[in-house]
Amino acid sequence: MALIVHKYGGTSVGTTERIQLVADRIVETKKQGHQIVVVVSAMSGETNRLLSLAKKITESPSPRELDVLLSTGEQVTIALLTMALEKKGCDAVSYTGGQVQIKTDSVHNKARINNIEVTRVQKELQEGKVVVVAGFQGVDENGNITTLGRGGSDTTAVAMATALNANECRIYTDVDGVYTADPSVVENAQRLSCLTYEEMLEMASLGSKVLQTRAVEFARKYNINLRVLSSFKEGSGTLITNEEENMEAALISGIAHNSDEAKLTVIGVPDKPGIASLILSPIAEANIEVDMIVQNVGLNNSTDFTFTVHRNDYEKAMSILKETAKIIDAADVMGDNKIVKISVVGVGMRSHAGVARTIFKALADEKINIQMISTSEIKVSVVVDEKHLESGVRILHMAFGLGKE
Amino acid sequence: MALIVHKYGGTSVGTTERIQLVADRIVETKKQGHQIVVVVSAMSGETNRLLSLAKKITESPSPRELDVLLSTGEQVTIALLTMALEKKGCDAVSYTGGQVQIKTDSVHNKARINNIEVTRVQKELQEGKVVVVAGFQGVDENGNITTLGRGGSDTTAVAMATALNANECRIYTDVDGVYTADPSVVENAQRLSCLTYEEMLEMASLGSKVLQTRAVEFARKYNINLRVLSSFKEGSGTLITNEEENMEAALISGIAHNSDEAKLTVIGVPDKPGIASLILSPIAEANIEVDMIVQNVGLNNSTDFTFTVHRNDYEKAMSILKETAKIIDAADVMGDNKIVKISVVGVGMRSHAGVARTIFKALADEKINIQMISTSEIKVSVVVDEKHLESGVRILHMAFGLGKE
Repeated sequence: MALIVHKYGGTSVGTTERIQLVADRIVETKKQGHQIVVVVSAMSGETNRLLSLAKKITESPSPRELDVLLSTGEQVTIALLTMALEKKGCDAVSYTGGQVQIKTDSVHNKARINNIEVTRVQKELQEGKVVVVAGFQGVDENGNITTLGRGGSDTTAVAMATALNANECRIYTDVDGVYTADPSVVENAQRLSCLTYEEMLEMASLGSKVLQTRAVEFARKYNINLRVLSSFKEGSGTLITNEEENMEAALISGIAHNSDEAKLTVIGVPDKPGIASLILSPIAEANIEVDMIVQNVGLNNSTDFTFTVHRNDYEKAMSILKETAKIIDAADVMGDNKIVKISVVGVGMRSHAGVARTIFKALADEKINIQMISTSEIKVSVVVDEKHLESGVRILHMAFGLGKE
Repeated sequence: MALIVHKYGGTSVGTTERIQLVADRIVETKKQGHQIVVVVSAMSGETNRLLSLAKKITESPSPRELDVLLSTGEQVTIALLTMALEKKGCDAVSYTGGQVQIKTDSVHNKARINNIEVTRVQKELQEGKVVVVAGFQGVDENGNITTLGRGGSDTTAVAMATALNANECRIYTDVDGVYTADPSVVENAQRLSCLTYEEMLEMASLGSKVLQTRAVEFARKYNINLRVLSSFKEGSGTLITNEEENMEAALISGIAHNSDEAKLTVIGVPDKPGIASLILSPIAEANIEVDMIVQNVGLNNSTDFTFTVHRNDYEKAMSILKETAKIIDAADVMGDNKIVKISVVGVGMRSHAGVARTIFKALADEKINIQMISTSEIKVSVVVDEKHLESGVRILHMAFGLGKE
């Protein structure tokens, strides 16, 4: 008997019919003798419906009240799914984030899980019940409702798996696994049967949209086997695990891309110690996450400093940056939100120097100009004009021989 | 400075526009220097939308999960109303039933409030905030979400007023007060400026639909001034208070009616001690509330036993009663859900014997047959065929001279 955490996203529970299909799948797994905890998102469309209600009242709702509002979405789903399970004769019980005691910090809309109290959940499991938990939400130490931000249900699932010491955490979604590239861009992209946490982290943060970064980080930290599967069709999906168990690691696993970013550049920054911190601190204080950071070697005691943020944060970051520019006496501030980041990911590249060369040559052959470059141990990312998204991804997918024959 | 509890029902918060109007009214009251706690219901239509989702999954959802589902309705409203208040520059904070710690028993769908922990709410009020509380809901001692049943938000409001020792509890609704009869039935019905708890209790339980019985009971027990007002137009509404403060108590305050009941009769019951308990215990165990009970004097050691229940419980009560009839060896069971109960209410009748006579004569003159009669200190109720609803109420309203000139 294994303890398995299932997670179903908004599309998988988007209608009462689909909720019943999800219930079927859970009953099936239960019959195999497993203990099951199910984490669910709000029904697709529900979060937007709630947001539009808030928007009719105010353009800038307070983060606390937004969390009170949005957390109702998952609460509806846990009740409906539990009803569906009970209807099928499967003993089940629902828990909100507050009821489980998913304790988070107090950063509304983007809270982080501190710890989970699983005593009650374990008791329910021992009694043979399926426990249905609301994803995306928690409570802070004062009992205020918090949400984990977009994609937070994945994090809830992995955190529950960790707290319960589960054997596997299955993320059911509308795709049947992780691909070598976005199949809507690259026709012959292949499903990967296995991937390391590190690779998935690079893929996820780079916009594969299959799994939330934080969830993968969590899984890696606590060594939780994570499997991405389709809610709608059968298949073994993609297993995300540690390197030791992923013996056949390829040189390159896939080509990811991300069109959600915008870049900002401070021009003519005095080239002296501490300047990067002066520029980025106000951005961090505004809770804006920075992805790539590039600073060129300075000439004449002056340098350019470029970084990328989520497109939603572009305007806010720009206005903060203009203030900062005055303070640090920079020449100018520039920005561009029509960019795309394309990344080549693979644990195999650690021991192979030729990857960057292959990338640059392939892009040059297509006359695609590279605006920024950033590398890590297992990935090389380039920022290009967003018009090159499709051709860039395709040419790199081909250059590394990732396509189906 | 007074502490005032406001309560707004589903119609009053039915759209985001109306929520903003409610916010205006609260800001207005706040400007008068009062501390305010606001209790709100789900937006009108929301509870039915949630119920229909549940119904698509199962005809008989478990009461626990139904509460998890339905309680999201008020949670949405508290968030939206708090946003609207904040938008108008009014410091406010929302609380779910669980967050306030409105502690109830564990009878899902029909829970009763045991106690309320107001420390946090008091602290927020002292800080100058308007506290917006979700009506209709609470938590049991194990943290399970409970709901108080239909109209439960009134009870939440009065319970909050009691726990906070508030000066007044204002129930804003879609009518501007309590009338001498339903204005849609009796054209010249008049708004009452004042009413005793006892009268309101008889009016409410008899279907005036303005206030929930339990809320009035609560207010009477703790001597809370209760005022019914319109959310949409100005006016002082109807004050419900104790008899001493209501000096002008009329002989008869009003004519109430209730079409929500059904009657059941057990025929040929052995006339011996304990038989009423044998009949009603299984009904009570099924959580069905019984209203009127009539038993005639027995002939030949046999009697008929009649009682009324809510129409929604009619089928269930009937099937229980058929089982009971077998056990107690009754001759037959009969039922009728096409009835209406009409009641004449007034504290003044305590000292006046002629009221019943006036009622019976007025109905007889209209050839309306009386099926059941039940009396209390301050009311006389009759059950008649539902086709006599309008004529019955009108003729009694006229017989006691309650109409406007």
